[in-house]
Amino acid sequence: MAEPRSEFAFIEWIRARAAPHHAVPIGIGDDAALVRIGSGDCLVTADMLMEGIDFLAETPPRDVGRKALAASLSDIAAMAGRPLAAVVSLAAPQDSRRRLIEPLYEGLEKLARAFDVAIAGGDTNAWDGPLVINVTLLGEPTGGGPVRRHGACAGDWLFVTGELGGSLAGKHLSFVPRVREAIELHRAVSLHAMIDISDGLAADLHHLLDESGVGAVVHSAAIPISDAARAMPGQKSPLERALSDGEDFELLFTVSPEEGRRLLAAPPFETPLSHIGEIVEGRDCELIEACGRRTPLEARGWAHSV
Amino acid sequence: MAEPRSEFAFIEWIRARAAPHHAVPIGIGDDAALVRIGSGDCLVTADMLMEGIDFLAETPPRDVGRKALAASLSDIAAMAGRPLAAVVSLAAPQDSRRRLIEPLYEGLEKLARAFDVAIAGGDTNAWDGPLVINVTLLGEPTGGGPVRRHGACAGDWLFVTGELGGSLAGKHLSFVPRVREAIELHRAVSLHAMIDISDGLAADLHHLLDESGVGAVVHSAAIPISDAARAMPGQKSPLERALSDGEDFELLFTVSPEEGRRLLAAPPFETPLSHIGEIVEGRDCELIEACGRRTPLEARGWAHSV
Repeated sequence: MAEPRSEFAFIEWIRARAAPHHAVPIGIGDDAALVRIGSGDCLVTADMLMEGIDFLAETPPRDVGRKALAASLSDIAAMAGRPLAAVVSLAAPQDSRRRLIEPLYEGLEKLARAFDVAIAGGDTNAWDGPLVINVTLLGEPTGGGPVRRHGACAGDWLFVTGELGGSLAGKHLSFVPRVREAIELHRAVSLHAMIDISDGLAADLHHLLDESGVGAVVHSAAIPISDAARAMPGQKSPLERALSDGEDFELLFTVSPEEGRRLLAAPPFETPLSHIGEIVEGRDCELIEACGRRTPLEARGWAHSV
Repeated sequence: MAEPRSEFAFIEWIRARAAPHHAVPIGIGDDAALVRIGSGDCLVTADMLMEGIDFLAETPPRDVGRKALAASLSDIAAMAGRPLAAVVSLAAPQDSRRRLIEPLYEGLEKLARAFDVAIAGGDTNAWDGPLVINVTLLGEPTGGGPVRRHGACAGDWLFVTGELGGSLAGKHLSFVPRVREAIELHRAVSLHAMIDISDGLAADLHHLLDESGVGAVVHSAAIPISDAARAMPGQKSPLERALSDGEDFELLFTVSPEEGRRLLAAPPFETPLSHIGEIVEGRDCELIEACGRRTPLEARGWAHSV
């Protein structure tokens, strides 16, 4: 459930209206909701991708199907959940079955198999409009239950997996959602708060801070900047890209300093882990440059002031 | 999960590819899937509605939101499930929040409250295309578990709730999904097979017969034809409308003759119940006219031959 910036206010509008419900212990405001079904707890998230927004008309349909599921897998990962079953809705152009719908499903199915996820059902429709795909993914909590956005404490260390920025060069279609890493982390340490980076490090850090009611300092030299971000042309610096490009689908999480040290000493997997900052009291969020200068880090990213 | 006729072959293509999965005891081929989450069983269904196909650009947004949830409620009803939580994805025109998205949510929320359904989350997106809404609905089985399409036996009586045909005159936006009726029926009798009528009585009867491997006879005089079907202009007769208009969102189900008689003698609710035919051995599906003439009843409906 990624949130384009312009929609944040609307999400708050819905959230404020949503009455508490006995069946929904975790509702709007996390990467996935938790629904209580009988004696079981079910994680659920939805991602809708639209032609011209999340992919191009010329994007291979296999990659579109793959991305739709991968984005949802990343949401379940952000709760340290185990994905189980997907429901796939499509609005596709008339007579596009061979050209578009079948390869789209094949791309989706291949990723589903890799994560042992079933395709449980769906709703396939034809129209004259552009391609729209919605994947709703169900999963189950692991270990001590879902990891949320709201548990970050002052003093916590802030970590990210992988490398950030420049996703549009290719990673936004080929990324491997961090499902296994999240489950491993949940087993290895006490995760205080976690989110996936879909809107960009700065924006998603702000989501985590807002939910937790805390601030943060981020060390610019510690941010793992991807080669793609360094190679991309344009006015944005590589650091700005890592802070605001979005669609990284990496994990951003906080742990106590003791457990942070333990993670760095013995990482539970090969995916890079970077200690990029600390949680602080108050609500300020600041970037500390290598020279020691501190500047506010806004949700919309960061621009080096001259 | 309604199925426009042109998509049946595609659904079979997906179904044939879907590997059995431990977490999905009921997958593609029923009104909802059943997903096993830990120790709980979760019903899940999705319905995607598109502007120009399922509603018009001038349809009040409240009605669009209502219909999107109502269609999914009808799917959960067809399994005799209790709906619990909805996840709502939207692709909406830019800058349409006040005009479109808010009233859409209000319509959806009002129906959700009436059925004690939580809105657990969603994904709201802006684009330049027409409005698309997808509702994924989670629910839990009631009584002896989900009622499926595949249990009809030769000799069973065939019932429908409500009245059929002419839904486009208004009912397709205002119908009350038969959630309560389905749960009452499931409590009162042994439901052998059930489906909701979204594609039309003839088409959905064929779905039920195909899954059960049986045939049926339907008595034309017993079909409850709506006033809307009688009043509608055009070449289709009221009976043809009742058989093939679709979007009735009524229940079609089979029970033993003994239980059928009991239902007619003491209906468990005020919604009309009509005994419209019987299940027979073999795979033929026939309509018996008042004059006694028998003609094949095809999935695509029935046209009176002169």
